Amino acid sequence: MRASGVPQTMISRWMLAVLVASSIASAWAQSLPSWNDGPAKQSIVKFVSEVTTPGGPNFVAAEHRVAVFDNDGTLWAEQPLYFQLAFMLDQVKAAAPKHPEWNDDPAFKALMARDQRALAALGLKPVLKLLAVANSGMTTAAYDKSIRDWLATAKHPKFQRPYTDLVYVPMQELLAYLRANGFKTFIVSGGSIEFMRPWAEKAYGIPPEQIIGTISETKFVIEAGKPALTRMPKIDFVDDGPGKPVGIYRGIGRQPIFAFGNSDGDWQMLQWTAAGDGRRFMGLVHHTDAEREFAYDRQSKIGKLDKAWDDALKHGWTVVDMKHDWNKVFAFQ
Amino acid sequence: MRASGVPQTMISRWMLAVLVASSIASAWAQSLPSWNDGPAKQSIVKFVSEVTTPGGPNFVAAEHRVAVFDNDGTLWAEQPLYFQLAFMLDQVKAAAPKHPEWNDDPAFKALMARDQRALAALGLKPVLKLLAVANSGMTTAAYDKSIRDWLATAKHPKFQRPYTDLVYVPMQELLAYLRANGFKTFIVSGGSIEFMRPWAEKAYGIPPEQIIGTISETKFVIEAGKPALTRMPKIDFVDDGPGKPVGIYRGIGRQPIFAFGNSDGDWQMLQWTAAGDGRRFMGLVHHTDAEREFAYDRQSKIGKLDKAWDDALKHGWTVVDMKHDWNKVFAFQ
Repeated sequence: MRASGVPQTMISRWMLAVLVASSIASAWAQSLPSWNDGPAKQSIVKFVSEVTTPGGPNFVAAEHRVAVFDNDGTLWAEQPLYFQLAFMLDQVKAAAPKHPEWNDDPAFKALMARDQRALAALGLKPVLKLLAVANSGMTTAAYDKSIRDWLATAKHPKFQRPYTDLVYVPMQELLAYLRANGFKTFIVSGGSIEFMRPWAEKAYGIPPEQIIGTISETKFVIEAGKPALTRMPKIDFVDDGPGKPVGIYRGIGRQPIFAFGNSDGDWQMLQWTAAGDGRRFMGLVHHTDAEREFAYDRQSKIGKLDKAWDDALKHGWTVVDMKHDWNKVFAFQ
Repeated sequence: MRASGVPQTMISRWMLAVLVASSIASAWAQSLPSWNDGPAKQSIVKFVSEVTTPGGPNFVAAEHRVAVFDNDGTLWAEQPLYFQLAFMLDQVKAAAPKHPEWNDDPAFKALMARDQRALAALGLKPVLKLLAVANSGMTTAAYDKSIRDWLATAKHPKFQRPYTDLVYVPMQELLAYLRANGFKTFIVSGGSIEFMRPWAEKAYGIPPEQIIGTISETKFVIEAGKPALTRMPKIDFVDDGPGKPVGIYRGIGRQPIFAFGNSDGDWQMLQWTAAGDGRRFMGLVHHTDAEREFAYDRQSKIGKLDKAWDDALKHGWTVVDMKHDWNKVFAFQ
């Protein structure tokens, strides 16, 4: 055994290394079972392997393994209308009698008519503003309860299931896989922090403090001797498009090395991630599965994927073809 | 051994429990060596023991063990002037030739004259505003570098040492002790996030994403094909006084069960922490040591401790007497 001059202990170490490497590779395959073998899965596994190999040229220390994910259309569905808009519809409807001035508001009219085209054309901001007014004066605790109550009863129009059933299993696996490899996972969403925090920890394993989103103004008050936070009728920060890198800077303070989105609202977050030094991963979910989920991209009013897709093709970012790359979309299917 | 009818395995378990309990108690004493035995240390250890005892009446699940700390005067010194103000002085001085309009600005005049009384009377906001203007147009990367450069060379006027040497050893021990007991530790400071993030991880073991602070407006830009974040001449959020519970809500999304401050700027954070259900810990550092550090409270222009102190006395919050409770203040002493 020592004929080659290599000490036996070194051979044993080498054999051990091979054994460890093959068991890691097998663990990889096991940790992303809903992903078909293909370029998308391979690019993820290759990236994670490179940045976690100590001594390798692309090694990244654990504290810099920051991974950011858009929510709507990336971690859960967003059609036919952002789920938060469905919630808002009910909230605004309930508050309407107290706000006769809304009868002339285009966002209010579009929301009441469920006019998705008009809502999409208006964008998120005027609708968020309506909601901010609708819930103004409510404590954050009461608002949190109204979200939990709604999520417990509301059903998605296509699937007739609670909205929280519409999280993507392959993305849940990806989040867990990244964390198992020392990454810290964050949500960076155009949706409001309050709407995600009540369920994201259970659905994604992401705690409230790792959720970056749109922020309404709140105010500290003491009412009848009891401290509370009251919602004010104003949006303070919109975490969408160019707001996403800003939200990352404010809330995380490190440039991510891994980012996943699905629409042009994620374009700047992907650009910001790509702009850092060293190995980076940029990914997009392309909705190609009208049967199991929805199929939409450049022409969609909700979750339009156009400029970010062009950039992905140009720079070789990973584009997930939902129909072909995922053997499972939702847990209930 | 079985005379009492108690099975031997049960006795063994009980003996093991006693052994474990006494080794934990001894570990406690060891993990806070710079704290003298006294009511402050005892109240900390008692609280942590209660909320981490599984099955106990005050047990708190690990994910809810959120601990928040003010920075200036709580984790490091703040006299004779907030250290960030010393940095600002140099920054504003360097930018002054480009801003002749500042000659009529009270905050600018007070800063140039190092008029601490006037600066304290003006409060943090107009000074932060000056700095925001001074650094407007700078990228966040360039700003980060200017802070690191300053910290590497500037010296504290009393101790003639780098400002980052002025962190309190007992508080470093407390942070580590809480984390060892499953707590997640956050800074919630009136200072700006940028000024703390470059050194807080090394000094306190608190990563950038767990630092809540005052936020200047930034904007995502692409210059010469390269994405960057540029600083705008506007303060977006002031994380001080009633802003602290708001900052906690925005950045953490959970009500803390443990809070430590040292001045009236921390009052609302302490009230907000106290307002939650179950066992809570509220602590104040009282600066009583003119020799090793500084002595100040109700009459101080910087770090005034008045209303929060009254509340502490009224509600039995823990008040640390620096002179008597800490056998060491700074590592270099």
